[in-house]
Amino acid sequence: MKAEIIAVGTELLLGQIVNTNAQYLSQKCADLGLDVYYQTVVGDNKQRLIDALRFAGERADFIICTGGLGPTQDDLTKEALAAHLDKKLITHKPSMSRILQFFEQRKIPMVESNAKQAIVLEDGDVLMNDNGMAAGVAISMNGKHYILLPGPPREMKLMFDTYASEWIRGLLPDSKPLFSKVLRFAGIGESLLENKLIDLINGQVDPTIAPYAKEGEVALRLSTKADSRTEADMKLAETEKEIGRRLGNHLYADEDLSLEEVVIRLLRRKQSTLSLAESCTGGFLSHLLTNISGSSEVFKGGIVCYTNEVKSTLLHVEQTVLDRFGAVSRETAEQLADNAAEQFSSEYALSVTGVAGPDEQEGKPVGLIYIAVKKKGCPAEVEKVQLTGNRQLIKLRAAKFALFKLWQCLKEER
Amino acid sequence: MKAEIIAVGTELLLGQIVNTNAQYLSQKCADLGLDVYYQTVVGDNKQRLIDALRFAGERADFIICTGGLGPTQDDLTKEALAAHLDKKLITHKPSMSRILQFFEQRKIPMVESNAKQAIVLEDGDVLMNDNGMAAGVAISMNGKHYILLPGPPREMKLMFDTYASEWIRGLLPDSKPLFSKVLRFAGIGESLLENKLIDLINGQVDPTIAPYAKEGEVALRLSTKADSRTEADMKLAETEKEIGRRLGNHLYADEDLSLEEVVIRLLRRKQSTLSLAESCTGGFLSHLLTNISGSSEVFKGGIVCYTNEVKSTLLHVEQTVLDRFGAVSRETAEQLADNAAEQFSSEYALSVTGVAGPDEQEGKPVGLIYIAVKKKGCPAEVEKVQLTGNRQLIKLRAAKFALFKLWQCLKEER
Repeated sequence: MKAEIIAVGTELLLGQIVNTNAQYLSQKCADLGLDVYYQTVVGDNKQRLIDALRFAGERADFIICTGGLGPTQDDLTKEALAAHLDKKLITHKPSMSRILQFFEQRKIPMVESNAKQAIVLEDGDVLMNDNGMAAGVAISMNGKHYILLPGPPREMKLMFDTYASEWIRGLLPDSKPLFSKVLRFAGIGESLLENKLIDLINGQVDPTIAPYAKEGEVALRLSTKADSRTEADMKLAETEKEIGRRLGNHLYADEDLSLEEVVIRLLRRKQSTLSLAESCTGGFLSHLLTNISGSSEVFKGGIVCYTNEVKSTLLHVEQTVLDRFGAVSRETAEQLADNAAEQFSSEYALSVTGVAGPDEQEGKPVGLIYIAVKKKGCPAEVEKVQLTGNRQLIKLRAAKFALFKLWQCLKEER
Repeated sequence: MKAEIIAVGTELLLGQIVNTNAQYLSQKCADLGLDVYYQTVVGDNKQRLIDALRFAGERADFIICTGGLGPTQDDLTKEALAAHLDKKLITHKPSMSRILQFFEQRKIPMVESNAKQAIVLEDGDVLMNDNGMAAGVAISMNGKHYILLPGPPREMKLMFDTYASEWIRGLLPDSKPLFSKVLRFAGIGESLLENKLIDLINGQVDPTIAPYAKEGEVALRLSTKADSRTEADMKLAETEKEIGRRLGNHLYADEDLSLEEVVIRLLRRKQSTLSLAESCTGGFLSHLLTNISGSSEVFKGGIVCYTNEVKSTLLHVEQTVLDRFGAVSRETAEQLADNAAEQFSSEYALSVTGVAGPDEQEGKPVGLIYIAVKKKGCPAEVEKVQLTGNRQLIKLRAAKFALFKLWQCLKEER
């Protein structure tokens, strides 16, 4: 079955915002097995909206609109669809009550125009808006199915996932729902990961395996149709096991979690502590960790040592080491990690030193990085890696690689 | 005049990528004075592409396509337009030479299909691709104007800005080009800034003033039509002066530069040095500064002190101060900045301590931040600010506010 997505809003046509709604809905349509042949964007103009609905109705089975359900004069999507299908507009009482209640609870007078948000199409189904006030609409006529969703992504996504997708599924020949599971990997690039699984990615029909890149990491989405989550999990288990067999050393989560989140969780479970010595990542590693709520329980802090002087005065890297091997070296990385653990009295310490670019340094190439992981009582383990990208990408990739090495160390001791 | 933007690519219809090209081109059309009534996305299918071109040709004067100019069998935009306009496809010799040269220089054999990228429409103009191999096309027929641009944003943007916009301008009744200038502000929110300039923003037709939010900062774009940059600058000067009169304390750049870039420039000009003591920003401030190439000349480093223990052992904040006033206090901020300058032997030091959330701390509310700026030989200046947002936003806003205070201090001494 074919679908067309119509995003409504003059702000899109002026380029003031990017059409992320179309991307979201396209992904969801693909998950449902619908083929999207066109996406359209149209402004807040009733006649052009009607034209867009007519075009779409001629070439698709499902017409999914987002935007134009709000309280202002510019919000015209329901009016346009009612005109196109020759249907009446009526007030949906439960939605009206919710709107009145909203204003009552906040003790502010309701502006009259808000009542517009409770209006729906006669003979249609109503899609509740659990994140806002504008009710959605789903209606079938002459074998064509129309869905009206609000424009704000928070409202649109929840309404689609909770109500609209169910409504669509009920109209599809094979109405089994699709279940997905995300696996996340670190310390491996997208192309190498794809290469290791190419026979499964290309050859396997059920479950399907789709790789996609996250910031400095890689993820896989496994999907299958099933009657229940339990049945789906059973169907996914064998594929997951095979992937684990091939790439277990890189598979750090079987849900959609970032690497820093997993590292903080492991440290909290151990009631352990961490500190950092960062040269080329320049505070970015620290920033990633402190983005996670609860990181303050395990992360004590770090030193950003952007000059050799700071490496020697604050982190006690020996001058002879700096002179002989340079700041970008195995030996410096090791002393940075050792002394960070010492200075911060932490159980674990992580150090990163390298060349972020744009220029080479000490005659060493851009992207050359040394990472050291220190655990109290053990010698630091140092790893050398050659990364690619511009300055920002090298910072990101070096930080993620350092977290990957720490994750490996934490995991082994579980 | 009306324009329609057609983005070509099945990956857009599958939701694998978001259509940022449509946003970019919409903005550019608005700048040129063209009204975009529709944006369309269509897959790599010749018949549907021809249909999309036909629809667009019926309702717009300028039809701007992006994508589908590459070497693969799926790249069909030129073929579709040639069929739609009944034109021949011919090889553009200069483009062909460039492609051959590319492979020769790299000493790799050219895959035959690359020749496809030098193909253009007979009777059309060729738009050079200075960032890639696929040539663009611009052609007028029966009062309709068609432009074909490549899909990769780097290639598309440069081709549009360098060649296509000029081609379009030549066809517009008022062919004076539009000149813009960006002013950037810090330490002030978008709504307050708008409020201070509301009479100019709403009342002034030439130059136009459009505010827009950047990450934790605010910018204004002033635009005017003129025959030359010099004439435009003269027309913009008076407005700029008036804005400076009202908001000069916040106006940190009259070009599109980030605050951290300006701070690094000022420090380099002074041949001075900076260090940091970060608590609630958790390394983010350091990350912003080290993103700038050349920051290593002036930025010595910083300490992320995420526990009271680290504040006292590594940054020598007195225990009595921590006990009496707490870690989130004027007194702690002051000692952090004083001691960072001392430890790193830097001319300037900046400290940030506060509550990033999600929970309050020491009975102090989420978003309460103290910032101290220290200059060698002077007492540290402390500022208290109450910010809003989630954890990540508070980190961002606190870091930008700290940079704003440092910028004020650096600027005064110029």
